Amino acid sequence: MSAGSPAAGVIRVGVIGVGVMGADHARQLNTAVPGARVAAVADADPSRAQAVAADVGAAAADDPLSLIAGADVDAVVVATSDPTHAGLVRACVGAGKPVLCEKPLTPSLAETAELVRDLGESGAALVSIGFMRRFDPGYAGLRDAIRSGRRGAPLVVHCVSRGVSSGPGATSEYSITGASIHDLDIVPWLVGSPVSEAAWLAPRQSREADGLRDPQLLLLRTEDGVLATVETYLNARYGYDIRCEVVCESAAVSLAEPRRVLIDADLTRAGDYWPDWRGRFADAYRLELTTWVRAISSDRAPRGPLATVADAIAAAEVAEALIRSMRQGGGFVPTQLSRSVRP
Amino acid sequence: MSAGSPAAGVIRVGVIGVGVMGADHARQLNTAVPGARVAAVADADPSRAQAVAADVGAAAADDPLSLIAGADVDAVVVATSDPTHAGLVRACVGAGKPVLCEKPLTPSLAETAELVRDLGESGAALVSIGFMRRFDPGYAGLRDAIRSGRRGAPLVVHCVSRGVSSGPGATSEYSITGASIHDLDIVPWLVGSPVSEAAWLAPRQSREADGLRDPQLLLLRTEDGVLATVETYLNARYGYDIRCEVVCESAAVSLAEPRRVLIDADLTRAGDYWPDWRGRFADAYRLELTTWVRAISSDRAPRGPLATVADAIAAAEVAEALIRSMRQGGGFVPTQLSRSVRP
Amino acid sequence: MSAGSPAAGVIRVGVIGVGVMGADHARQLNTAVPGARVAAVADADPSRAQAVAADVGAAAADDPLSLIAGADVDAVVVATSDPTHAGLVRACVGAGKPVLCEKPLTPSLAETAELVRDLGESGAALVSIGFMRRFDPGYAGLRDAIRSGRRGAPLVVHCVSRGVSSGPGATSEYSITGASIHDLDIVPWLVGSPVSEAAWLAPRQSREADGLRDPQLLLLRTEDGVLATVETYLNARYGYDIRCEVVCESAAVSLAEPRRVLIDADLTRAGDYWPDWRGRFADAYRLELTTWVRAISSDRAPRGPLATVADAIAAAEVAEALIRSMRQGGGFVPTQLSRSVRP
Amino acid sequence: MSAGSPAAGVIRVGVIGVGVMGADHARQLNTAVPGARVAAVADADPSRAQAVAADVGAAAADDPLSLIAGADVDAVVVATSDPTHAGLVRACVGAGKPVLCEKPLTPSLAETAELVRDLGESGAALVSIGFMRRFDPGYAGLRDAIRSGRRGAPLVVHCVSRGVSSGPGATSEYSITGASIHDLDIVPWLVGSPVSEAAWLAPRQSREADGLRDPQLLLLRTEDGVLATVETYLNARYGYDIRCEVVCESAAVSLAEPRRVLIDADLTRAGDYWPDWRGRFADAYRLELTTWVRAISSDRAPRGPLATVADAIAAAEVAEALIRSMRQGGGFVPTQLSRSVRP
Repeated sequence: MSAGSPAAGVIRVGVIGVGVMGADHARQLNTAVPGARVAAVADADPSRAQAVAADVGAAAADDPLSLIAGADVDAVVVATSDPTHAGLVRACVGAGKPVLCEKPLTPSLAETAELVRDLGESGAALVSIGFMRRFDPGYAGLRDAIRSGRRGAPLVVHCVSRGVSSGPGATSEYSITGASIHDLDIVPWLVGSPVSEAAWLAPRQSREADGLRDPQLLLLRTEDGVLATVETYLNARYGYDIRCEVVCESAAVSLAEPRRVLIDADLTRAGDYWPDWRGRFADAYRLELTTWVRAISSDRAPRGPLATVADAIAAAEVAEALIRSMRQGGGFVPTQLSRSVRP
Repeated sequence: MSAGSPAAGVIRVGVIGVGVMGADHARQLNTAVPGARVAAVADADPSRAQAVAADVGAAAADDPLSLIAGADVDAVVVATSDPTHAGLVRACVGAGKPVLCEKPLTPSLAETAELVRDLGESGAALVSIGFMRRFDPGYAGLRDAIRSGRRGAPLVVHCVSRGVSSGPGATSEYSITGASIHDLDIVPWLVGSPVSEAAWLAPRQSREADGLRDPQLLLLRTEDGVLATVETYLNARYGYDIRCEVVCESAAVSLAEPRRVLIDADLTRAGDYWPDWRGRFADAYRLELTTWVRAISSDRAPRGPLATVADAIAAAEVAEALIRSMRQGGGFVPTQLSRSVRP
Repeated sequence: MSAGSPAAGVIRVGVIGVGVMGADHARQLNTAVPGARVAAVADADPSRAQAVAADVGAAAADDPLSLIAGADVDAVVVATSDPTHAGLVRACVGAGKPVLCEKPLTPSLAETAELVRDLGESGAALVSIGFMRRFDPGYAGLRDAIRSGRRGAPLVVHCVSRGVSSGPGATSEYSITGASIHDLDIVPWLVGSPVSEAAWLAPRQSREADGLRDPQLLLLRTEDGVLATVETYLNARYGYDIRCEVVCESAAVSLAEPRRVLIDADLTRAGDYWPDWRGRFADAYRLELTTWVRAISSDRAPRGPLATVADAIAAAEVAEALIRSMRQGGGFVPTQLSRSVRP
Repeated sequence: MSAGSPAAGVIRVGVIGVGVMGADHARQLNTAVPGARVAAVADADPSRAQAVAADVGAAAADDPLSLIAGADVDAVVVATSDPTHAGLVRACVGAGKPVLCEKPLTPSLAETAELVRDLGESGAALVSIGFMRRFDPGYAGLRDAIRSGRRGAPLVVHCVSRGVSSGPGATSEYSITGASIHDLDIVPWLVGSPVSEAAWLAPRQSREADGLRDPQLLLLRTEDGVLATVETYLNARYGYDIRCEVVCESAAVSLAEPRRVLIDADLTRAGDYWPDWRGRFADAYRLELTTWVRAISSDRAPRGPLATVADAIAAAEVAEALIRSMRQGGGFVPTQLSRSVRP
């Protein structure tokens, strides 16, 4: 069957966690992803589950575990708070159902490693991780440009991830495990070499980010020597702004600004920023979900850059090194210490 | 049922004409449009029909009419050469099947008017027209900005449609009815007023466009006085480049350049042009097909900006005026003469 | 003496008319133009003359004619209202002094032609015209790109000249002779062919431009067939915005946006527009004045693209054709009728 | 005397060192800087001195010291190789003549400190340093935006300085003292706080930069906590590319791309990079020289952001810390150790 063939049958998806992220997944699954429909939703807040269920024409499950066990659910999307991921993924694998778990797989390297060990090889194969930037046409274009061989070897990467404001209860560690984690995954994916050491630095802090070290500047070094700067600024106020530039020996490639319209008014020429990731990465989420659904429908369907538990462990290793660097006040920390845990 | 609800059942689509355009539609229907699958394809070239059928896992019909009549086809996409549209649309309506016909509905106003008269009101309701730019997020953003009321009234529109090269056998008239036709539809859709007169002008001609007046400069005036310049240059060589700016009383809004990646190399900073419409309007075609499939699945589904036969007639009226202007050597020609033919 | 040689002595310049334009010239002459200093200023408003004279360390002349006659003045800049230009230029030439007259040389073709005839060849050689766009690095870059021969022949030109608001008493004719005149000069200068016919069109009018047809759309056709669209919108409100694109057979070249800084704030990425021509064309004015001063200092100094009375007549011919087109309600009007008046 | 007043008399400038940099200064002084002319040039290569002297209409001095002593020279520009700066500056001050010395004042902190100590306060006042980026309209716009108080405090700065290729004999230390030095000066100038510590890192190295650590990544921390990343890549091949972004609490401001013309050709939209600093910073050099000449002409003329020996010491302190960091294999090194040497 070729890439153009239709999915055989419709995958009935259960979505656990229907906050902003999960509700967006549910809507995309029902309106933009071929071969899927949302069959059930669950949420810690029953009224939210009811509302989203009504909106997408699905059932509201009493609780996540009954959703996972339900005969009307073929596959599960997990978009709950980070600490609950491990238990839900275990349950999905226990029920033999494919699961797409939002990043991070778990909030810590130890827990991620333990989970992956417990899942075993066949269990781990059921799990995909929501590193959706790999599906963004911009990042894909960067990778193609680097891999073309016409630009020389990659030497330096500059990443910026800025948002309007951090959510309630965000911590300095969350900034790494919940936000920067995308860059920790994308840098080695782009340059084709794993991160071998990482360092954390604190710039002058914004006065509007109480209780949180924000912005943060991370440095990553890959095994083949590429150095990446990763600026994460959750309370940048001005907009949701994701940038990436890869400097190669004879060229530099970067993400273009993803604007649709320019407005000349009030003595400026201006393009809008999206307020959050939904607009910026709508295409990436759609393509990720489409690839995941197709991969479930057919063993022979290409999985493309869909992230695996091995990718989750790799990113968790870097996050762990960064948190150690943060706690010791900076300096490079190697990531290799934990390599033995890989499945 | 809300916007997030899934399509009930899968629409089995027949695609007639699987050249570059139709093959792209077939691939999008199978891989990116929820609730649809390609059931059959037909083409004047049987081997091309066989190849695309194999690629998308569909049957190759012996001929278009048997495809339309087939019990395995719920709805039809017509992407054949322009002169064949009318007959195929008649057959689809005769079979009571929804049809999405590529623009133009027919190559001439007279034929379009005759066809629409013959279809009758209920027949015409089965027909949608492939003015896909209305689904492009850029054009949609322009329209939203204009309609917001914060920019003052629209006064002037500047459109540019350039391509790498004209296809074999392209004529000066085809440049209008087959290429500029998109701008003839989009200008009144953007500013909310029909075109009342139009003029054709010939700039200095490219020496590489033998037998074809290329570039052409068209002027459109809407009923409320907006003046639009439309430059069409099919052999611009440098890339597929579509631009639009709407100048309002206190602001100007324009399409941003739709680039994903920038490359710094060889003493330049450069962004790529797509070589044709497939990359530039992939989103627009996907969203158009998605809306069309949903509208077929449910009477209550929103049709959004899906173009109708009335839109086809309006565009054909402007094209007719432009061809008259061309043949008389320029000058404004009114479009109102033919208004009586509207269904 | 090569291009790098210093001017011999300092040219003492008299500036007549020190409104916004003339005051800016005076300041540039004193602070940014080698080999010049402002010796005297005159203005219809004596207090304004006094103020600017004090600011630039020059004398305030009692009246323009005594300034022109003054032994302390080597050369004159005329930046008064358009109808006064002819008389002042006559006086300068009568005194044998080089004069840089702001565009237009006079408000009408007839008056321009009469003036030039009266000046005679040697008198005309003393007169330069302030078509400063030719000195703008952007326009110069466009011309170089076109003339390189690597892009094919020019076919179409798109010009836009927008401002924040028209001055008091601006008329529809002034929009052509005082504002669009820059485009009437620059189009033939860019493409290397004179304008042979021109047409005037009125888009829907801004409600904020009382008494003035604004915006206007002009069409110019050159002798070798290039067609130019010129949109002039004096009350565009949003900023001073000058654009130009030249479409050649195999490439299109355009002015880049002349921004220095980008600001990410308030959910937008924005670059500022200048509120008027002073910031936008500061370089062009500086380079024009520098070239003019050097040309006065040495017969052998290159005059570069400094405009002559022949250029003033050529632009006035096009303006005259456009005003005729306006008065007759549109349509192309040839410019050749008046060719005999050239000196 | 106000800002608009002309310089009294012409400053006769001697230029020592007329390689690419010095020859450009000489040409600018003669053609674009009011109130100056090049009276004499000197160079280690007598034939080069002769050639440039002929080009700018000046005398070729037998040697630098006779140029400095010459009665026909009022002020001196030093653009020789870095190690010769100190001796030439001493000679200029000994002769009581103002001198504009290209950066760095000397190649090391120790030598800079010794020189400044020897010059004494009145001698130091005769010396200006060629940190011309402060005169670049882009950097000036950045500083204005930051200082406006509307953007919140500056937190992070990202600088990039890339060139096409390093000159012959460039060393890893030279990359800091001769190239990055501009960023070491501009960062504290922008954010208004001195650099208190600095760290050096080596990304993966370009294979085309033999003998030189290239690119380098520098980290600067200012006294008030701002963290700056400075990427210097002398052999970036693709163009001369200077970038700067300052991230503030509620906004980010950055240099716009300084392009004049865009070219659509060969399936790309492209803007040219300059091959070196001459085009990129032509305005900055011109404005720096103009300010310097005016300051010499009049004690009351504003010196604007003209850099002093104190600025040279501050930058040398940071360079020294970076070289220590490089030699010790990375890590932050404080700059305060040497603060006592300030004059």
